[in-house]
Amino acid sequence: MVEFHILARDGGARAGLLVTPHGEVETPTFMPVGTQGTVKALSQEELEGARVQMVLANAYHLYLRPGAELIEQAGGLHRFMGWERPILTDSGGYQVFSLAPLRKVTDEGVRFQSHIDGSYHTFTPERVIEVEHKLMADIIMPLDQPAPYPCSEAEAEAAHRRTLLWAERSLRHHEKLGGGPALFGIVQGGVRHELRRESAEVLSDMGFPGYGIGGLSLGEPKPLTWEMVEVATSTLPEERPRHLLGMGLPEDIVEGVARGVDMFDCVVPTRYGRNGTAFTWKGKLVVKNSPYAGDFSPLDPDCSCPVCRRYTRAYIRHLFQAEEILGLRLTTLHNVYFFCELMRNMREAILRGEFAEWRREFYERYGVS
Amino acid sequence: MVEFHILARDGGARAGLLVTPHGEVETPTFMPVGTQGTVKALSQEELEGARVQMVLANAYHLYLRPGAELIEQAGGLHRFMGWERPILTDSGGYQVFSLAPLRKVTDEGVRFQSHIDGSYHTFTPERVIEVEHKLMADIIMPLDQPAPYPCSEAEAEAAHRRTLLWAERSLRHHEKLGGGPALFGIVQGGVRHELRRESAEVLSDMGFPGYGIGGLSLGEPKPLTWEMVEVATSTLPEERPRHLLGMGLPEDIVEGVARGVDMFDCVVPTRYGRNGTAFTWKGKLVVKNSPYAGDFSPLDPDCSCPVCRRYTRAYIRHLFQAEEILGLRLTTLHNVYFFCELMRNMREAILRGEFAEWRREFYERYGVS
Repeated sequence: MVEFHILARDGGARAGLLVTPHGEVETPTFMPVGTQGTVKALSQEELEGARVQMVLANAYHLYLRPGAELIEQAGGLHRFMGWERPILTDSGGYQVFSLAPLRKVTDEGVRFQSHIDGSYHTFTPERVIEVEHKLMADIIMPLDQPAPYPCSEAEAEAAHRRTLLWAERSLRHHEKLGGGPALFGIVQGGVRHELRRESAEVLSDMGFPGYGIGGLSLGEPKPLTWEMVEVATSTLPEERPRHLLGMGLPEDIVEGVARGVDMFDCVVPTRYGRNGTAFTWKGKLVVKNSPYAGDFSPLDPDCSCPVCRRYTRAYIRHLFQAEEILGLRLTTLHNVYFFCELMRNMREAILRGEFAEWRREFYERYGVS
Repeated sequence: MVEFHILARDGGARAGLLVTPHGEVETPTFMPVGTQGTVKALSQEELEGARVQMVLANAYHLYLRPGAELIEQAGGLHRFMGWERPILTDSGGYQVFSLAPLRKVTDEGVRFQSHIDGSYHTFTPERVIEVEHKLMADIIMPLDQPAPYPCSEAEAEAAHRRTLLWAERSLRHHEKLGGGPALFGIVQGGVRHELRRESAEVLSDMGFPGYGIGGLSLGEPKPLTWEMVEVATSTLPEERPRHLLGMGLPEDIVEGVARGVDMFDCVVPTRYGRNGTAFTWKGKLVVKNSPYAGDFSPLDPDCSCPVCRRYTRAYIRHLFQAEEILGLRLTTLHNVYFFCELMRNMREAILRGEFAEWRREFYERYGVS
C-alpha cells in the first residue's frame, strides 16, 4: 500500500510525499518509462544518479516477454531489474488498444494478438491484476479502455462504462488476492465533460488509494485536454495522488502540476534523447543537426548533469553521425536529469508559495507560452 | 614522448610501466578499441570505473568523420572525447586495406575511397602523421601495408619494403613537425621469418620509442602467428614496449604476454559483448541463449564488477531478447572489466615470479589449452 501526504498547496498545485514499500517519492514527480523492465538506453545506476525516484513498466510487454511467471520466480520486478526504488506498472489497456494488431473487446475482456509473435492472448481485468501481482510493483493500474479520438457518442459511452465495470472487477479481484501493491483507478471518459466527471465520481466512490487520468493527448486540441484534466482533478478526492498517464512534454508537466497533478510518466525524455533532441532550459535542441558540428559547449550551459559537465555538443553530434550508441545514451541521460530537475524546481517553488512566478519565468526561458 | 620501465621479467614475460603525457600505464596492458572516438556502447565514466588505462582510436575513421581539423579545434582527441587518460591512434593502414572499397597503392601512398560516402582520399605517410598530430594522441602509429594471408612471395616482399620505406618517411616527417606524440614503428613481414626479422631489425635501427607488431591473425595457423611474434620480440630492443596490434582473445593475450608483448588492443571484449557473449573465468558464455532465460546468477560468479554485483543472466538475456540497449551495454562493460582484471592478474603474477603457474591455472579454469 501507499500513503500520500500533501505538504503544501499553491494555487491548484500541490507538493507532497508518496510513501511506498520501496521508499518515499517527492511529488510532483516524473517517472521515466521502462516499458520492458529497462528505461531505454540507461542503466539503473544512471537512473539513481539522476535522482529518478520511480519508474513505470508495462504489464502488457512484460507479460508477453519474458512472462510474469519468470519475473515472479526472480522475486518480482524490482529483483529482476536490480532496481530497489518504487515501480508502477501500467495495466496494458493502452498498449493492447494501440499496439496489438488484432483485438476483440467484450465486457468480459479483450482478446488480442501479441505484437511480437502474433500469438493470441486474453486480458480480463482479473487476469491483469494477477499478472501485476506477480510483477509486484508498488503501484498497479487496472485494465481500462481508452476512447479513441475522435469517436462517436456511443463508442465513448461504451468505453467509459466498460472501464468502470472493469475497475470494479479489478478492485474486487485485487482484494481477493489480499492487496499488496496499491491499485489505482483510471479516470477515462474521452473528451466529454459529463463522462469524465462521472468516471471520476464513480471511481472516487470506490475508494482507490490514487487515481490515473488516462486517454488524453490522443489528438484532441490542447485546451480540451486541460479541461478534461480539470474535470478530473476537481472531482477526485483532494487527499489522493493523481497520475496523468503518458503525457510528458515539459509544458504538459508544468500545466498538469498547475492543475493539481502529482505524478507523470512519459517516453518523451528517452525517445527524444534517442532521436538526438536534448531538452534545455532554453527549449529543445536538436544536437544531431549540423549547426552543432563545431559547437564545443555542453548540451545545456545551465545544466550541471554529468553529461553537461564532461561532453560537448560537437562530440555528441559526431556520435549521432557515426551511429554510436554513446550519443543516444548521453542525450537520454541528460534529458532524464533535466526532467528530474524540472520536477524538483517546481516542487521547491510550490513549497515556497511561488509556483505562479516560477511558471512564468520557466516559459520566458523555455519559450512556450 | 613516452618512457618505459621494465619492473620485472618472468620467463619471456615482462611487467612494466609506460609513462605518457596523460599518465602512467601499467603493463602488460589491454586497450579497448574506440574506433570513432568512443569505445562502442560504453561511456568514458564506465571505462574509468573498469580501470581502463588507455584506449585506441583510429586515425582513418576520425580523419573521415568528424575530420582531424575539427578534433584539432576541440583541442585534440582527449578534449574532444572527454577522456584524460592515454590514447593511442592507429594509423589506418589496416583500415584502408580492409575497409576502403577501392584503393590504389604506390610507394608514394594509397589512394582510397571512403567506406562512408565513396569520396576519394590519399594517405601518404606524411599525411597520416599530420592527421595524427592534429588528433594529439600520446602514441601514434605510422602508415603501413600489412601483407594479406595468404600471398605470394612478391606481394609479401613488396608490402614489407613499402612498410619500411613508409616508416622512414613517417619518422622524418614526425621529427620535422617537432615530435610531440610518441611514434612507434610497426613490424610487418607477413608470415615469413626472414621478412619479419628484417622488419624488426631495420625498425630497431631507426630507434623508435616503441614497436607495434602488425599483420597477424589474418587467417594463418596459430603456431605460425606465435613464431612471428617470437621473431619480432626476440629481435626488437628489450627496453622498448611492444604492442601486438589487433589481437585480443584472452588466450591470445596470455600467449602474447608469455612471449614478451606489453600492449594489446582488440575489439573482442566490445564486439563479443554487443553480440551477447560474456567472457568469464570459466570461458565464454553466450548469455543471450535460452539456457539462461531463468538463470538468476550473475554473468560470472567469480567477478566483482558492477554488472555482476547487480544484474542476472536472466535479466540480461531478457534485454537481448527484447533488443534493449542495456543488454549489450552490460555485457560489454563486464567484458571490459574482465579484460582489465585479466591484465592485472597477469601483471601481479609476473611481479611475483609466478607467471608460468598462473598461466597453467588460467587455462585449467578457462578451458583452452
